[in-house]
Amino acid sequence: MKPAVAAVDWGTSSFRLWLLDAAGMVLAERRSGEGMLTASAEGFGPILEKHLAAAGASEILPAIICGMAGARQGWIEAPYVTLPAGLDGILAGAVPVPGQGLGQGGGQPREIRILPGLAQRSAETPDVMRGEETQLAGLLPLFASGRHVICMPGTHSKWVEAEDGVISGFRTWLTGELFSVLSTQSILRHSLGENAAPPLPDTPAFVAACAEALGQGGDIGPSLFRIRAATLLNDLAPEDASATLSGLLIGAEIASARRMFNPPANKVILVASGPLGSLYAAALKLAGCTVLAADADEAVRAGLFEAAKRLGWMGADSTGPASESLAP
Amino acid sequence: MKPAVAAVDWGTSSFRLWLLDAAGMVLAERRSGEGMLTASAEGFGPILEKHLAAAGASEILPAIICGMAGARQGWIEAPYVTLPAGLDGILAGAVPVPGQGLGQGGGQPREIRILPGLAQRSAETPDVMRGEETQLAGLLPLFASGRHVICMPGTHSKWVEAEDGVISGFRTWLTGELFSVLSTQSILRHSLGENAAPPLPDTPAFVAACAEALGQGGDIGPSLFRIRAATLLNDLAPEDASATLSGLLIGAEIASARRMFNPPANKVILVASGPLGSLYAAALKLAGCTVLAADADEAVRAGLFEAAKRLGWMGADSTGPASESLAP
Repeated sequence: MKPAVAAVDWGTSSFRLWLLDAAGMVLAERRSGEGMLTASAEGFGPILEKHLAAAGASEILPAIICGMAGARQGWIEAPYVTLPAGLDGILAGAVPVPGQGLGQGGGQPREIRILPGLAQRSAETPDVMRGEETQLAGLLPLFASGRHVICMPGTHSKWVEAEDGVISGFRTWLTGELFSVLSTQSILRHSLGENAAPPLPDTPAFVAACAEALGQGGDIGPSLFRIRAATLLNDLAPEDASATLSGLLIGAEIASARRMFNPPANKVILVASGPLGSLYAAALKLAGCTVLAADADEAVRAGLFEAAKRLGWMGADSTGPASESLAP
Repeated sequence: MKPAVAAVDWGTSSFRLWLLDAAGMVLAERRSGEGMLTASAEGFGPILEKHLAAAGASEILPAIICGMAGARQGWIEAPYVTLPAGLDGILAGAVPVPGQGLGQGGGQPREIRILPGLAQRSAETPDVMRGEETQLAGLLPLFASGRHVICMPGTHSKWVEAEDGVISGFRTWLTGELFSVLSTQSILRHSLGENAAPPLPDTPAFVAACAEALGQGGDIGPSLFRIRAATLLNDLAPEDASATLSGLLIGAEIASARRMFNPPANKVILVASGPLGSLYAAALKLAGCTVLAADADEAVRAGLFEAAKRLGWMGADSTGPASESLAP
C-alpha cells in the first residue's frame, strides 16, 4: 500500500512519526528524542523532513501533527480549544504551517497541520493538555455515549471526564515527574540508587505501597521519607525502594482522582502503553476499579488519522482504525 | 564572661557554632555552609578548630555537637537512640570523638562529644532524626507532663509526639525538599522563575493555597500542575506561583500530620526560626490550631547546653537557659 498521510506525535522530548495508508495501517515508523526542546533549537521543518525522507515519504505526502509542536514555544501555535469540547472541535482546530501546501518554490511542498490542545479555563482549576486530546479523538468509540472517566498516565498524568462524547473536564497529576525528581534529585536517591527499571505489577513492594496509598486516601506525605528511613534502619533494597516510591505515587494519584471523578460503576478507561500501562492496570484493580485498557500509541495514530480524514486528505470513503485501538 | 563550652549544630549543609558561658548565654557565634557534605571531604576536625580559633576559644574548651556529624557518613557515628526515648537517654548517648580529651600530643586537646539521633524502629513506619532531638532536649519544660504534639518544619519537617517528657513517636514530611526540587527541577520552575524569596504569611496566594490544601485534607495531587496551567491561561505571576506552591505543601503537611497525631486541644508546639516559622504559624492558625512558638536556634543551644551540664562540664550548680527558649 501507498502512504496516504504522515502522522506525527511531537512531544516535549520525543518525536514519533508513522506513515499510514488510506485505511490507517502503519507502513513505516520513526522514533527519536528530537522533541520540542531539540526542535526549538534545530528547527521543526528540517527535523520533520529528515525523518520523512528516511521513512521514504514523497515530497507531497501531507503531515498531521499533535503535541508540543503546537505550543506557543513550538513550531506554530495551535491555540487551545476550550472545554467543553467535542472531538469535532479538536479536529477542526488544526492549524496549517505557513509556507507549506501553497505550491511555493520548486515542486509542491507538502501540506502540514498541527492539532490544538485543550484548555480548561477556570479560575479555580485551570488545566491544559497537548497530545492527549488526539488520543481521545482516536478513542471516541469507547466513550461516545454516557459518562466515562479516562486515565492517561505519564509524566503528567491526565484524568478526563467525558459525557456523550464531549470532554467536560480534566485534571493533571505530576506523578511521572514526581517519580523522576524524587528518585534523582531528593534524599530518596540514596535509597533508590541507579536502579531505574520500573517494577513489575506484582512486585510485593509495589503492591504494598500502592495499597497503603489507597488505604490512606492518597496521603503519602509521611510515607516518602520512610523509604529513606527503611534503608537506614531496615536495609531496604534499592529495587524495593524504587517499587515503593512508584506504588506510593501511583496509588496516591488513583485515590485522589477517583475521589474527584467518581467513575460510574468504578469503570476506568486506561490509555497507556508498555510497563506503565501494566502498573496502572494493577493499581486500578487494587483500587477496586474495572479497567478497560486502550493502547496509547494506537490511540494517537487513530486520532491523527481521524483528523486527516476530516481534512479530506483520505478521500471521501476512507475508513479509520479508530475501533482497533480497543485492547481486549 | 568566660566561655564554658562550644555548642555546635552540624547539619548536612550548614555549620553553626556558639560559645556559651556557664549560664548558657551566647558569647560568640559562627555560621558557615561547611556542613557534613563539605566536612566529609575536608575533615571535621580542621573545620571545627578553624571556627573555634576564629571565635577565640581556648585549646581546652570542650565542644558538644549535634546533627549529621554523628551520622554513619559523618565524623564519628553516634548510634540512634531507639524510641520511646527520654531526654536522659538522648543526652547520655553522647559519643566521644577518639583522640580528643586524652592529653595526647602537645598540650591537652579539648574534649568533644557528639549527640545521637533518634530512631523509630518499626517495620511499618521507620523514621529517623538527627539534630531535632537536641532541640527537643532544650524544650523539655514545654512538654514535661501530659501529651503534646510538636511541629519542627524544615527541609524534612518532623512532627513529634511526646508523653510526660518522653518522645513516643514521630514522622517526617519532605515539605522543604519538595518545594526545592519542584521549584527548580520540575515543569513548575517555568512558573516560579528565579523568584526564591519565601512569601509573607499574609500573602493572599499563600493563604488561599494553604486553605485549599487544608480543605482537601491535604490532597494536593491535582493542584500542583494547576500552577503551571494558571501561568499559561491566567498569567499567574511568579511570586504568586511560588506562594501557591509554598501554601499547598505546608497546608498538605499540616492536614496530614494533624490527622495522624491529633494534637490535644488542637495545640501545637511550633519549633522554627525566621520566615519559615511565620509561615507555619499562619498555616497552623488557618487549620484551627493554637500555636505555642519556640525558637529553633535557642532550642538547639539549650539542648546542647543541657547535654554539657549532664556531662559535668559546667560544674554542679550551673543553671541552663532551657526555659528561655519559650517565645511569647
